[in-house]
Amino acid sequence: MSIAIPKGFRLAVASAGFKKPGRKDLALVVSDVPASSAGVFTTNLFQAAPVVVGKETLARRTTARAVLINTGQANACTGNKGLDNCRATMALVGAAAKLDPGDILPASTGVIGAQLKMDLWEKAAPEVAAGLGTASVEDFAAAIMTTDAFPKYAGEVLELGGGRVTLAGVAKGAGMICPNMATMLAMVLCDAAVEPEGWRAMFRRAVEATFNRATVDGDTSTNDTLYGLANGASGARAANKDLEVLEAALTRVLADLAYKLVQDGEGATKVMHISVTGAASDKDADLAARAVGHSPLVKTAMYGKDANWGRIICALGRSGADFNPSDVDVALCGVELFKSGQPTDLDFDALLKDPLEQRDLSIDISLGAGPGRYTLLASDLTPEYVSINANYRS
Amino acid sequence: MSIAIPKGFRLAVASAGFKKPGRKDLALVVSDVPASSAGVFTTNLFQAAPVVVGKETLARRTTARAVLINTGQANACTGNKGLDNCRATMALVGAAAKLDPGDILPASTGVIGAQLKMDLWEKAAPEVAAGLGTASVEDFAAAIMTTDAFPKYAGEVLELGGGRVTLAGVAKGAGMICPNMATMLAMVLCDAAVEPEGWRAMFRRAVEATFNRATVDGDTSTNDTLYGLANGASGARAANKDLEVLEAALTRVLADLAYKLVQDGEGATKVMHISVTGAASDKDADLAARAVGHSPLVKTAMYGKDANWGRIICALGRSGADFNPSDVDVALCGVELFKSGQPTDLDFDALLKDPLEQRDLSIDISLGAGPGRYTLLASDLTPEYVSINANYRS
Repeated sequence: MSIAIPKGFRLAVASAGFKKPGRKDLALVVSDVPASSAGVFTTNLFQAAPVVVGKETLARRTTARAVLINTGQANACTGNKGLDNCRATMALVGAAAKLDPGDILPASTGVIGAQLKMDLWEKAAPEVAAGLGTASVEDFAAAIMTTDAFPKYAGEVLELGGGRVTLAGVAKGAGMICPNMATMLAMVLCDAAVEPEGWRAMFRRAVEATFNRATVDGDTSTNDTLYGLANGASGARAANKDLEVLEAALTRVLADLAYKLVQDGEGATKVMHISVTGAASDKDADLAARAVGHSPLVKTAMYGKDANWGRIICALGRSGADFNPSDVDVALCGVELFKSGQPTDLDFDALLKDPLEQRDLSIDISLGAGPGRYTLLASDLTPEYVSINANYRS
Repeated sequence: MSIAIPKGFRLAVASAGFKKPGRKDLALVVSDVPASSAGVFTTNLFQAAPVVVGKETLARRTTARAVLINTGQANACTGNKGLDNCRATMALVGAAAKLDPGDILPASTGVIGAQLKMDLWEKAAPEVAAGLGTASVEDFAAAIMTTDAFPKYAGEVLELGGGRVTLAGVAKGAGMICPNMATMLAMVLCDAAVEPEGWRAMFRRAVEATFNRATVDGDTSTNDTLYGLANGASGARAANKDLEVLEAALTRVLADLAYKLVQDGEGATKVMHISVTGAASDKDADLAARAVGHSPLVKTAMYGKDANWGRIICALGRSGADFNPSDVDVALCGVELFKSGQPTDLDFDALLKDPLEQRDLSIDISLGAGPGRYTLLASDLTPEYVSINANYRS
């Protein structure tokens, strides 16, 4: 499947040599016209320089022209010099691509703590600017990979009242975090015309429904960034009912990318689709889902293809969610293992033998305490995860 | 080192065959006289039958005569029948050992969900009662093992104003949790004479300072139980200043057992001694220490002997503790890696090469935000942990 580039965007990738020579490690997208801009960032107290600068830029202007992403150097924990360097890269690329530097949204991923190699940026800036219009969405997705096993992209074409619009998204991250390669970056381009306020609101809701409900190891990095640009180049204006149609498409694109992040979680072999209903509140459902999705014991059981309901209920019991244990039901891949607080008498090992061989596993939990609900995608925990992370720096 | 049995206690172990024939799986200790009793239990909402019964017993009486522990069957998620069975085991052992069943404190560990095998209890109760006085502290510790790699016991003899008193403790658990083998049980015997109220207060404080600050995988099982009995058989009464001396000794014995639990964490090769100071509150220090101690990325780095400070600061930044990133200092094994929010220029890979080969690793964190402090013991995360837990049931 080839992903169409939304109208009015030009993409470029380059090899600056930030970490290894020859590897594509710089990606730039420019919109021909100012685009409604949106961004969501890590909640970690330690925020990388491009996160600080990107937030400032979004606070100052409701539109942007470009997103600039480098891998290999995170520019995190680099102090004021890191902020100055980040702004200097925007000035270099802005000059080369004839853009106001303040119209560029920056993002970085790579090793924490080192200052950017500005000499390499000076050489690479004209190169990446000259390449605008030559890269595909797939090229862009490949250029922002680090430990990712495969490039992650998604797209959708839909008909609004005003005409056809195109959405294209890319993401990188193998694990919601790997802070030394900090970490999760994503971007969505759209050629619909949407007012900045409406675009930002739908972007925030779509991220909450997708990326914020995906986890590999429960960590949150210093560099996590998602940007969204909607430039109107299709000529189709999204308003009224069409806003909902566009938001649904945006949510699907982000959900596709979020799924791919979990699927490519470091060492992952499984994607758990955890659904909690019947919680006293949505917050309680969130607590319960995360306790299950983060439990190393549940994760290892899923890796081991083990219908170990005891570990699921144990995680629920310590989650902090408020419920009565005797009202709890749990089903794994549709097989009810636990009903009204006690194990069922189904021969679940036999019933689950084939389902547990699959990559996608559903865990449906009902707490019997109210209307609260939450869903979460989570990967399993494997020897490969430990091996990747124990040997990463060496 | 042989652990002295405090005066006035008789110990017994037996093989009931709950899980495998021939394996010691039943342990009983009886005090000749009523002993001041104390207990601390899991906070999991799913509470095993012996936890429910033990709590009721401690609420009803301030003294007890015996602790009865079985492995192989957790008696958790077993409903009212599980409660009846638990009480029936106390009646069986009470009759055989000539004890009021209400004077027996029960604890179980083993597979969740199955009802106790009462036929085996009927045969084993007279046997274990007949063996009272024949088992050592080490025998008792060995009889309560499940996936533990080694028996865990600790003891201390000290001189109070009124004479010599002896403390002996045992614990089991390889991982703070492994809910299917639910899980962490411990017991301390003491022959000092202490009022129940004072004994319970010091027990609670000692547990808070030790067991509550140890973690393997962040889970909390359905069966976690710690009991403490002080029977006064030494003739030495602990009062006034001696209460503090006794509490310090009790804390050391529990700290020794808690350390051994982490050391024997499933697959563990390292014990992290995490100290957080300078937090805005003790609660914040707790959050920060747990975020580091539970982070799979920090745990795998320690396993990999990797001075990966980026993972430590990343865990701090997402911990929920309130601080200014530019005030944070981090030292690993005494080597300052991170100072005032930025990496130091020490050659820490060289400096830490030998220290990271050791089992015990100190992580000292200062948040520069106030007087709050917390300490936590945590194990590393290894391929062996995944392997044990992925293959446990099969």
